[in-house]
Amino acid sequence: MKIFDRPGFPNPARIRIVLAEKGLEPQVEFVSVDLIAAEHKQPAFLEKNPSGVLPVLQLDDGTYIAEATAITEYLDNLDGDPKLTGKTPKEKALIHMMQKRAETELLDAVGDYFHYATPGLGAALQVFKSPEWAGRRDWGNRQRDRALGGMKYFDTVSRSHPYVAGDAFSMADITVFAGLMFADAAGIAVPEDYSALTAWRAKVSELPSVKNRSGQTFVTEDLRRLGF
Amino acid sequence: MKIFDRPGFPNPARIRIVLAEKGLEPQVEFVSVDLIAAEHKQPAFLEKNPSGVLPVLQLDDGTYIAEATAITEYLDNLDGDPKLTGKTPKEKALIHMMQKRAETELLDAVGDYFHYATPGLGAALQVFKSPEWAGRRDWGNRQRDRALGGMKYFDTVSRSHPYVAGDAFSMADITVFAGLMFADAAGIAVPEDYSALTAWRAKVSELPSVKNRSGQTFVTEDLRRLGF
Repeated sequence: MKIFDRPGFPNPARIRIVLAEKGLEPQVEFVSVDLIAAEHKQPAFLEKNPSGVLPVLQLDDGTYIAEATAITEYLDNLDGDPKLTGKTPKEKALIHMMQKRAETELLDAVGDYFHYATPGLGAALQVFKSPEWAGRRDWGNRQRDRALGGMKYFDTVSRSHPYVAGDAFSMADITVFAGLMFADAAGIAVPEDYSALTAWRAKVSELPSVKNRSGQTFVTEDLRRLGF
Repeated sequence: MKIFDRPGFPNPARIRIVLAEKGLEPQVEFVSVDLIAAEHKQPAFLEKNPSGVLPVLQLDDGTYIAEATAITEYLDNLDGDPKLTGKTPKEKALIHMMQKRAETELLDAVGDYFHYATPGLGAALQVFKSPEWAGRRDWGNRQRDRALGGMKYFDTVSRSHPYVAGDAFSMADITVFAGLMFADAAGIAVPEDYSALTAWRAKVSELPSVKNRSGQTFVTEDLRRLGF
């Protein structure tokens, strides 16, 4: 298998964590895509994923799988023993619900703030992300408020459950974790009184699949040269 | 099981089709939510689904499941014989990829056009959807272009595969179908030269789970009173 991604960015990080959880890293060849030069918006990459986003998994038969949820479903089910996407119908449903909620209310909201209300990833990429961004800061700021609402929601969830979709670490936790990582980069701090969310994050940060992974530093040189 | 929804709207339609495909309609009690009066944005509904969107499934143990993909995973796996969400890891991955692509590039794009560049569902609801809509028509129109790009993509897919994720009807087809249904209501016509997409749509429209279902007319009185 090949993974086309860029270490340090939130959606690539989701799949790096999944690979570590499933012990699949040795089976994967990583191919770095120059996201800041907008390589993923050029024809060669769009043939792999017409949506123009990272990461993309290429199977050994040549098939391309895009979208973090789809890649996670593949990797998690490969050994017939899913641990991140649920075993029973109810587990699957709760994990997919919370995963989607984490995307909509946190990760995607942070992304919209980042690309509409800040200079984002620089001129080469912003022309694809938000050509009108200079006039849309108010809309972007509304997305920041939405992201803060998402943090509040997941703080509440963390008060009553050890993990986002219940008793076990799952794909939904990974999405929330990536959302908070993106929020750091975008400059949206977790409010101090969201102590349950902060405690959940500290706990997840210590998981072997998340902590100190080589090649998986969450603030890379790319982000530093952009001023984060 | 209970389903909180409103016939005639795209996301509720997705689950109605799933229920029909799985033969589960007799086991479900439908509860109508007055979407045009923004009932789904009020506290009583937000306790069921804090994201404030339809449909929501309530299990017999009281658990609420929101998000069409999550509800579909539940219903499709209930009998241990999934037919809409894939059996093998590769099937699951392709279906989730195409499903997500159909949401992002078509259904959600149409929704953003509808709520930002048109009067949408009227004053009571628009205040929740797009308080700034009058100033964001250009952004909304960009989403219409995105939706047209999504139609072009699925037209290309339809030229080489009988269904959106390959050889079998799946959750991904249902999302594209709902996206086109929403596009009709929003006034975004499928371009005439997208003949493969139009042929795919005609074929799906004739499936027993889609055709002539009682209580599932796709243009309801709600839409007619709004002028569609």
